[in-house]
Amino acid sequence: MDLEEFRKHGYDAVDRIYNYYKQLQENPGEIAVQPKVKPGYLSTLGDVPPQHGIPFDSIQNEFKDVVLKGLNHWQHPSTFHYFPSNTSFESMITEMTIASINNPGFSWHSNPSSELELVVMDWIAGLFGFSETFYHSKNTSGGGIIQPSSSEGILVAIIAARERILRAENTRDQSKLIIYASTQTHSSAAKAARVFNLQLRILDVDEDLSLRGETVMKAINEDRQNGLVPFVVIATIGTTSTGAIDKIDEIGRVCQSESLYLHIDSAWAGTHLACPELRDELMLDGINEFADSINIGMHKMGLVSMSTVVMFVRDIKSVTDALTITPAYLRNQMTDSGAVLDMKDCGIGLGRHFSSPKLYFMLKSYGVEGFRAHIRKSIGLGERFRRYIEADEVFEVLYKPRLSLTVFRLGGTGDLNSLNRTFYNNLSIHSDKLSLTHTVVNGLYCVRFVTGCPQTREVHVDDAYKIISDVARLTLSSEL
Amino acid sequence: MDLEEFRKHGYDAVDRIYNYYKQLQENPGEIAVQPKVKPGYLSTLGDVPPQHGIPFDSIQNEFKDVVLKGLNHWQHPSTFHYFPSNTSFESMITEMTIASINNPGFSWHSNPSSELELVVMDWIAGLFGFSETFYHSKNTSGGGIIQPSSSEGILVAIIAARERILRAENTRDQSKLIIYASTQTHSSAAKAARVFNLQLRILDVDEDLSLRGETVMKAINEDRQNGLVPFVVIATIGTTSTGAIDKIDEIGRVCQSESLYLHIDSAWAGTHLACPELRDELMLDGINEFADSINIGMHKMGLVSMSTVVMFVRDIKSVTDALTITPAYLRNQMTDSGAVLDMKDCGIGLGRHFSSPKLYFMLKSYGVEGFRAHIRKSIGLGERFRRYIEADEVFEVLYKPRLSLTVFRLGGTGDLNSLNRTFYNNLSIHSDKLSLTHTVVNGLYCVRFVTGCPQTREVHVDDAYKIISDVARLTLSSEL
Repeated sequence: MDLEEFRKHGYDAVDRIYNYYKQLQENPGEIAVQPKVKPGYLSTLGDVPPQHGIPFDSIQNEFKDVVLKGLNHWQHPSTFHYFPSNTSFESMITEMTIASINNPGFSWHSNPSSELELVVMDWIAGLFGFSETFYHSKNTSGGGIIQPSSSEGILVAIIAARERILRAENTRDQSKLIIYASTQTHSSAAKAARVFNLQLRILDVDEDLSLRGETVMKAINEDRQNGLVPFVVIATIGTTSTGAIDKIDEIGRVCQSESLYLHIDSAWAGTHLACPELRDELMLDGINEFADSINIGMHKMGLVSMSTVVMFVRDIKSVTDALTITPAYLRNQMTDSGAVLDMKDCGIGLGRHFSSPKLYFMLKSYGVEGFRAHIRKSIGLGERFRRYIEADEVFEVLYKPRLSLTVFRLGGTGDLNSLNRTFYNNLSIHSDKLSLTHTVVNGLYCVRFVTGCPQTREVHVDDAYKIISDVARLTLSSEL
Repeated sequence: MDLEEFRKHGYDAVDRIYNYYKQLQENPGEIAVQPKVKPGYLSTLGDVPPQHGIPFDSIQNEFKDVVLKGLNHWQHPSTFHYFPSNTSFESMITEMTIASINNPGFSWHSNPSSELELVVMDWIAGLFGFSETFYHSKNTSGGGIIQPSSSEGILVAIIAARERILRAENTRDQSKLIIYASTQTHSSAAKAARVFNLQLRILDVDEDLSLRGETVMKAINEDRQNGLVPFVVIATIGTTSTGAIDKIDEIGRVCQSESLYLHIDSAWAGTHLACPELRDELMLDGINEFADSINIGMHKMGLVSMSTVVMFVRDIKSVTDALTITPAYLRNQMTDSGAVLDMKDCGIGLGRHFSSPKLYFMLKSYGVEGFRAHIRKSIGLGERFRRYIEADEVFEVLYKPRLSLTVFRLGGTGDLNSLNRTFYNNLSIHSDKLSLTHTVVNGLYCVRFVTGCPQTREVHVDDAYKIISDVARLTLSSEL
């Protein structure tokens, strides 16, 4: 494709996205949320690429008619599963722009693009109400960095924490180290333990599914008596299953007194810190006082496309010291001077996607109030659904409801797990009309409903409730 | 930004990229390759985002006039530094499309988008001449997966290798394990050792800077005698410094007989396997016979934007077994059936960029021959430059030249390192006109010149040589 063709096909690609979103916004019923395809559904694409290039239009058509038709549409207004996967028109345009620059930006010398990251991360620190500790520009030791995924944020935190304890203990032997997480922590903590071949202890939670300080303290004492070395707690603000919030203040005090590193995973809920009225519930004071680091997925509720996770760190040197490797071919005056932050030392990869423009364009275009309006709209829609469920006698809401997430099930007596498994399977038959996921918490099988897709409006929540209510009644009647 | 505005600003963004590339292609002299900015150059952007959104045009203008103006232009035709960072018009359009779908795709249930990955990875296996072992569709145990960076490809390989040895030794104690790399291996191997807190032994290379089988064998014997457990070799096809190629056949035979895992890092050179005439030099037979895994950066010479690394694995289960964690909220019938590959088990992160469409659009639009033409053009330009250097008595080419990379220095007697450091510093003064990087190999300070940017034509190589030649003579005369 040459430059002139780019203009033509670029306009056309914009039109195709325009048409897709026009349908998502005006006639979403024409698009199956979760098409029912089978493994191997793309075998029609053939075993080999063409020997000679084919016209771009025909590729676009095949992509639309064959590939896209089989994908789950996470931008469909009736998507209430897993968690929101926000994008925005700003982010789509910016991704194209970023790809035109295509800049590895691993060091200041390779590209001073890190400068934009420092600026926008300070903007986001302000947006979320973080203290000066987490700003680059306030002459503290901390600041924000972008990670490609929450999983990698957690990995980087554990690396920093591990390095701190190994240096303090003057050993490289990690066999006694133990990570703490709770029964409600996202699986990425367990995966991180796998990745690092480190021990992980899963701690119990209270009736609100929150990890408590005393539980951590008790585990520390037990494990130390057994010769183990507790060194990091992965706490959560807004768990994936139910949105539970760990008691950051309690855990923080324990971590501080016992010299443990405190990382907070707030992949989904963290963006809600933008709204001042939610900051107490989201334990902002605890974050500001105690968190060594926190990761927040902007591609979940933050109006930027994947993969953009913001991570704020109290002591950036704890990360860079643990990760710095600078061979001759990457050495340069700027790095040696210490005046700049080389992003390669802030994450696991060397080359990294130039993601900061996505945050820059989104924040300037939405403004702080526009961003808050998006969060509040999502919560409003989530509460609308919750009121339906609460008012309907066949359902019960389980656990403390959080933000735009409701966890519920069919209530009553008997084998409720079996009943609700059937209920969820019956709901899945309608996955062309709405998409939901289930979870199992404390042995209870339940269904999750979370809003946040920018396309979702009241009518989609109402329609979803109608289907859920109908399927519930059908399930109950056939079970009787 | 609403849907109608998206169309307007989408077209405008296409026009802006069009204008940028028109300048890069027709008047690149108007754009400084490496603008001379200072740390903090973006402080004019302000401390906070606007309270209310501002017009998108004005953000685009500020981005162009302030941010972009200070960035290094990796797509500038006079970029000969580090390594190429390819993008293509196809990839720019596709990134926008991907961002409009914005699909986490961590499991088949979350999105059957993995199907496209399986298809295009088989296409690429064919493009590179890999054996059936590395195809998904040939009923072997292997296949290709996409990783966000080469670093992560190496990490995943080490995790698979570590799990294999720990299970074989029936222990979780990793303190005796030792990774092998060479003096020429990319720093990501050293970083991986840091990340995993594993021992790393750096092995010497031969006069061509290649790691040899006998060197590996000797190290294995020594380390085993010292009670250590060698378990993985990170070999390289095309090192970053000089393009050196390890003797994959020799190393492979040693790894096979001694049960070590062989991972090959071919982040830059691997894409050149598309050209049959280069496959012997790039040791394709050795890869096919011995590699447990290999990573190739498609965003270096592969005409797709960041971050797209293809990794081919001989035994995918060795990766998924080492990485699988499936909690209740991610369980589903498809995953449990074993009929599908959940991409979350193939990498470190859970959510992942939907990168396969970039490979799909690029391969269909370029075709196999178009892709090969791009590689061959880059090598032709690299050889053109090398001939200039070889014909010029003030220079000497160091080490065996590889593909489009030439490593050279000012020759002569005396303190050549000091001379060449001055030479490189003098060259850096012209970083607005061309961008180069240096390296230090076996104690020799030298300059690297690598082609591969799609915008580069003969005239840019000729102009670069003229500047380099002039600066060389100036350096020599002022040193005398």
